[in-house]
Amino acid sequence: MAIDLEETYKDLHEHPELSYQEHRTAKIAADGLRALGIDVVEDIGRTGVAGVLANGDGPTVLLRADMDALPVAEETSLDYASTQRATDPDGNDVPVMHACGHDVHVTCLLGAAEALVGSKDEWHGTVVFVFQPAEEVGSGAHAMVDDGLYDRVPKPDIVLGQHVAPAPAGVVGVHAGPAFAATDDVIVTLHGEGGHGSRPEATIDPVVMAAATVMRLQTIVSREIAGGETAVVTVGTLHAGTKINIIPPDATLGINIRTYDTGVRDRVVAAIERIANGEAAASGAPRMPDVETLDSFPVLHNDEAATERTIGAFRAAFGAERVIDPGRVTGSEDVGTLATAAGVPIVYWLLGGLDPSLFTHGLANGTTDADIPSNHSPHFAPLIHPTLETGVQALVVAAREWLG
Amino acid sequence: MAIDLEETYKDLHEHPELSYQEHRTAKIAADGLRALGIDVVEDIGRTGVAGVLANGDGPTVLLRADMDALPVAEETSLDYASTQRATDPDGNDVPVMHACGHDVHVTCLLGAAEALVGSKDEWHGTVVFVFQPAEEVGSGAHAMVDDGLYDRVPKPDIVLGQHVAPAPAGVVGVHAGPAFAATDDVIVTLHGEGGHGSRPEATIDPVVMAAATVMRLQTIVSREIAGGETAVVTVGTLHAGTKINIIPPDATLGINIRTYDTGVRDRVVAAIERIANGEAAASGAPRMPDVETLDSFPVLHNDEAATERTIGAFRAAFGAERVIDPGRVTGSEDVGTLATAAGVPIVYWLLGGLDPSLFTHGLANGTTDADIPSNHSPHFAPLIHPTLETGVQALVVAAREWLG
Amino acid sequence: MAIDLEETYKDLHEHPELSYQEHRTAKIAADGLRALGIDVVEDIGRTGVAGVLANGDGPTVLLRADMDALPVAEETSLDYASTQRATDPDGNDVPVMHACGHDVHVTCLLGAAEALVGSKDEWHGTVVFVFQPAEEVGSGAHAMVDDGLYDRVPKPDIVLGQHVAPAPAGVVGVHAGPAFAATDDVIVTLHGEGGHGSRPEATIDPVVMAAATVMRLQTIVSREIAGGETAVVTVGTLHAGTKINIIPPDATLGINIRTYDTGVRDRVVAAIERIANGEAAASGAPRMPDVETLDSFPVLHNDEAATERTIGAFRAAFGAERVIDPGRVTGSEDVGTLATAAGVPIVYWLLGGLDPSLFTHGLANGTTDADIPSNHSPHFAPLIHPTLETGVQALVVAAREWLG
Amino acid sequence: MAIDLEETYKDLHEHPELSYQEHRTAKIAADGLRALGIDVVEDIGRTGVAGVLANGDGPTVLLRADMDALPVAEETSLDYASTQRATDPDGNDVPVMHACGHDVHVTCLLGAAEALVGSKDEWHGTVVFVFQPAEEVGSGAHAMVDDGLYDRVPKPDIVLGQHVAPAPAGVVGVHAGPAFAATDDVIVTLHGEGGHGSRPEATIDPVVMAAATVMRLQTIVSREIAGGETAVVTVGTLHAGTKINIIPPDATLGINIRTYDTGVRDRVVAAIERIANGEAAASGAPRMPDVETLDSFPVLHNDEAATERTIGAFRAAFGAERVIDPGRVTGSEDVGTLATAAGVPIVYWLLGGLDPSLFTHGLANGTTDADIPSNHSPHFAPLIHPTLETGVQALVVAAREWLG
Repeated sequence: MAIDLEETYKDLHEHPELSYQEHRTAKIAADGLRALGIDVVEDIGRTGVAGVLANGDGPTVLLRADMDALPVAEETSLDYASTQRATDPDGNDVPVMHACGHDVHVTCLLGAAEALVGSKDEWHGTVVFVFQPAEEVGSGAHAMVDDGLYDRVPKPDIVLGQHVAPAPAGVVGVHAGPAFAATDDVIVTLHGEGGHGSRPEATIDPVVMAAATVMRLQTIVSREIAGGETAVVTVGTLHAGTKINIIPPDATLGINIRTYDTGVRDRVVAAIERIANGEAAASGAPRMPDVETLDSFPVLHNDEAATERTIGAFRAAFGAERVIDPGRVTGSEDVGTLATAAGVPIVYWLLGGLDPSLFTHGLANGTTDADIPSNHSPHFAPLIHPTLETGVQALVVAAREWLG
Repeated sequence: MAIDLEETYKDLHEHPELSYQEHRTAKIAADGLRALGIDVVEDIGRTGVAGVLANGDGPTVLLRADMDALPVAEETSLDYASTQRATDPDGNDVPVMHACGHDVHVTCLLGAAEALVGSKDEWHGTVVFVFQPAEEVGSGAHAMVDDGLYDRVPKPDIVLGQHVAPAPAGVVGVHAGPAFAATDDVIVTLHGEGGHGSRPEATIDPVVMAAATVMRLQTIVSREIAGGETAVVTVGTLHAGTKINIIPPDATLGINIRTYDTGVRDRVVAAIERIANGEAAASGAPRMPDVETLDSFPVLHNDEAATERTIGAFRAAFGAERVIDPGRVTGSEDVGTLATAAGVPIVYWLLGGLDPSLFTHGLANGTTDADIPSNHSPHFAPLIHPTLETGVQALVVAAREWLG
Repeated sequence: MAIDLEETYKDLHEHPELSYQEHRTAKIAADGLRALGIDVVEDIGRTGVAGVLANGDGPTVLLRADMDALPVAEETSLDYASTQRATDPDGNDVPVMHACGHDVHVTCLLGAAEALVGSKDEWHGTVVFVFQPAEEVGSGAHAMVDDGLYDRVPKPDIVLGQHVAPAPAGVVGVHAGPAFAATDDVIVTLHGEGGHGSRPEATIDPVVMAAATVMRLQTIVSREIAGGETAVVTVGTLHAGTKINIIPPDATLGINIRTYDTGVRDRVVAAIERIANGEAAASGAPRMPDVETLDSFPVLHNDEAATERTIGAFRAAFGAERVIDPGRVTGSEDVGTLATAAGVPIVYWLLGGLDPSLFTHGLANGTTDADIPSNHSPHFAPLIHPTLETGVQALVVAAREWLG
Repeated sequence: MAIDLEETYKDLHEHPELSYQEHRTAKIAADGLRALGIDVVEDIGRTGVAGVLANGDGPTVLLRADMDALPVAEETSLDYASTQRATDPDGNDVPVMHACGHDVHVTCLLGAAEALVGSKDEWHGTVVFVFQPAEEVGSGAHAMVDDGLYDRVPKPDIVLGQHVAPAPAGVVGVHAGPAFAATDDVIVTLHGEGGHGSRPEATIDPVVMAAATVMRLQTIVSREIAGGETAVVTVGTLHAGTKINIIPPDATLGINIRTYDTGVRDRVVAAIERIANGEAAASGAPRMPDVETLDSFPVLHNDEAATERTIGAFRAAFGAERVIDPGRVTGSEDVGTLATAAGVPIVYWLLGGLDPSLFTHGLANGTTDADIPSNHSPHFAPLIHPTLETGVQALVVAAREWLG
């Protein structure tokens, strides 16, 4: 076998790259495809890569992996842990880590390409391999589509892909219908009046305003969303002040929202604005906060019929006990854009990535313990085997279900 | 007259420098002293400058100005407003502004040097002019003393100096006894567990922990300090998170404390630690917060007898109506270190710097309106005249009181 | 017809009685049954009433209505609004209102009794009519069972009942499986140290401790419960202090919890205790809070097969468009105890009670607007027609499904 | 001696009475005066008592004691602890305790009357003994004046009185000028929308609104009052809810304010209203809170000259070491009304009432430890000796200073 999955994975893990900076990763993907004799198009949507493997008449299947990493300081003790740093879009020097497992996705897609090339006599049709940039900022799929993806590679009949998750390695999880939440990012800038730290009475303290706002934002989920509805409202960033003895003029909150229903989403966004305004008024703020909505992408809806068919193929390949229904998850994905833009169905599944012995409480309710490092944690460390082998096989099995 | 006060001031204001980066300012001070024929020692305590003007037998008077500016983005609309940026000690690129008026201090001390040189036949003794770095981080005076200040210039009999303040221009304010508060900086790092923004249940959210802590810190002053005591507790910086959809592993609060009494100070510091621990426990934090005490300097105590003598001189020079007692203020100053290290008294006064028409509510209770931009505000803009002239005269009058 | 539904309902509405004080209501129920020739047993579980209508061989069906009202001050402008007051178990004089619609339940069950008596030649078997006390405090069903209910009336083959809800009048809502949440009440008493309102520094303020705890309790749902899980945590009562200028020694929170899963319930209870302890520690409390668990009853689980059969009967009677699946609701019910104690299935449904024109947003997501007064609101005012007629018919239709 | 101070005190302590309910206490006072041959007027300002002891020409001195107790549940383990209960003005049954030491005041004033009667040949003039009701609700002095006090007894030349305090027994504390703070009570009623505890999404939760408001109110003192100013803002009562599973429609906060400056007072009251409105807006409240100002009385200003004269008399009688200056205190007193209404000076002092061994930290800063039970605490327990003897002597010494 030409591709050493473990070696490829460790190399990618050790060299993570931020969104739209995936030059090294894209080169590995492109070189890997070319080494297998697959035609490659590069620089789609800035750093995206697509390979086309045409193998006679038949359906076209798009397999997708995302490539970008996150500004997280890795705290695993792996010998291939990242020590990389990069400059983020705001010009800050930040640590970088594959804390969301996109390195698994890239590795598995290369492995699947090799397997499909090696079994060309067993199937017919066309496979498009997409290595997408910038999933973490929610715009990479759009960027590839806007940059003419489907003018440059064949339009698919179905889009398939996977995401590594805090479930036992060896398992795949597929949920029909709304499977991944919509996500919205909202930036709230609270305006106070700066001054000397010793004279708060001559200022309007934005740090206190921000703290009160964060506490109040918790009540959106606890008081305004019904038990039968779902919303997650996370203040992921909170920044105020440059010097301890200065009361700064403002404070900025970065708020991430997850919902499955646009009515709920709209209520959450309206509540954020109402709360920010109310807290500004309580502080006697000189003006109302700025509330800006950023990066937003919709619910990922797994096509019911295609999902049922994929589940059947997985059960045949892995045994029914290794195919679970995780329910809908609050994570979000922009991969749906690749299907929506082509007007075709999508099936996107979870790939278990952690040591099964961690799951002492069972899988019944789809919940993992706070002790199990999940995606975006500085401790997130997928188990290499059998995660990579299962991920390769899942892509091949699902693709072959359509390729015949 | 060789020194154009207004031009010097505007030039300094337009070119502010952070603590220990006052190279340009120090050069202006040193060149200015040398142009007056005064002996100069440079690079004391990194960027400090001292000049010695010996004029026969008599007492030695030390006049002090501090030189550093702050990481504040200037929001005045002055045509000499700063647009400077610099790299702060953490490596971040930050805006810089003379938001505390040290440019006034430097200008006035140069003006006083010129006046004292020009009137040498009227007085006897020695004047030491000290241009001190890094007052804002509380270590500049120490740095100069530790770097052998009093081995390199004569030890003074008295230390004198002034700080521009949000009082009417033309006025000086002097308070005998404890006049400026002690200040302590405390850094609290709250530890949570990071993870994906969509799955808070798998994390311990440090942003919520930080917000709850900020709200609780308010209760130290509101509930634990008696009506007859004084403490100010300001959270000047609050930073958490690098990306909106990631729950970060920790959050950091920078807390500034002002007190006049060590018992009160100790209670405040103990309460901060108790609250941080309690809030961490409420969150189920994986470990207790780190609470680190930084930059700390004591109460500035104006010598009673020397203050009374200075007030007399000021009244004679300015008229009684321009000499007020502002009471003790919650601002802090490390200038006391220059006196303590020499074992001599100090008199340090406030120099009114704002348009008198702003003070519609009178001065009776020493309080200014939140509408009047005070020190450290991005809107702080001293009135040039008669602030500079008054500042020069105050230094000369006070110095001459000792020089005979 | 002997029973005037509207008149009975208005009379009950105007004369609400607190839990275990339903003497007048019980008498109306007992007298009504007796007037129909039904055998009556009174004073079961203090104020409970049961009637037995034996009509030849066949199954035994138990139909249940609860009788108690709530300490709420009615704010409807109905001409039959309650102005009643009563002494609650703590000895306080409180207003009383049928804010949860148990008056509808009693009226409909009397109407159903009359209808079943009038149609005795169409069915065979036995109907047990249960008028239960004290549903609101969660102990009335237990009290009747413990007081020998099934020694005094025939043990049923199935338990049936209904609850009026903020859905359109004319509609019934049935959900198979877990249909009503488990509920737990937790009392948290926070201990501070009392003292004079002017000298907080000599006290530990329990009001601030309580406020911080309430804010923190919101984070259980917002941060500790996954998007796919359900919990509701409500602080329904908060009491502290007797006089404005006294800082009281303690504060008491009454917390109501709703869950569908015992794992989630246990996490919520543990989090309440952790937060209360953490906030007490942050306050420097003299001792840890008392956390006491009260009234607790489990999930109401509608038997799948029996529910399907009931839905079929409802569809036939009402038309499919008037039979909805409301999903599981976060309300709770102790009626399950009557089935569990007999070891038989239960089907319990919702009865729409509000003007259909209020539901402008549709019923699709089972959510009602904050503008629609729901159960326990001082504005809760069921529409008399067709609510009562539908409720009578639903009881008869469901009972007849078993009675043949 | 006819009056047994200890026995009288214990009897009063064991039988405390709420404001305007001091019937038993008033009778003890009136009977005691009459037994000494003093003329008595009863029922002035509802339950007030005044005695007049005319002893020839000379000045008229008014000595005042207040009589009422507080709705506090006594937690001392004294064998004469109160177990009394009473009906408060809202109709609630509440515990009652002499938690503010007015029993000491009554006892000492009876003792002083006996001493002055016994020494009539040593002085000349008139003494008016006033036993005032309802100091705790701030209206008792007004009530007596409005009810014609000075038509019924001679108008005094000076008003004298004392308050027992958490200072060492045997000590008296006198402060010239503003000595006791102004006090204002503000009631804030926050309006939400009530409903079922399981369906917060259909309500506006006033408990959360109240908690957020309490946390925010802390920032008035911590952020809006300068270090050199004084304000105390205490939420002494917080009540919401009647039943744990009902979200109530509103919540009520009772807020007590202490200030020395009307500008500060006005800013505090404005900030309370601003914060309440802001928090209501953040909650999406159906209407803005009701903010009502109650019981308000001004700063008690000890006449400078009269105070100096009294201090001289105290020093001569007790020795200088037993006469301290406690500074101004944040407690409030309506006794000033008796002087203002007569247009005469007042001197009002503190009477130490606790075991001196408790004061391990010294008296220097006038602060007592949180461990020392202060006025209004359920643990407040004055040391009987020498508190009572010192209190009697202080009244006699001060009165005799004017009586000659």
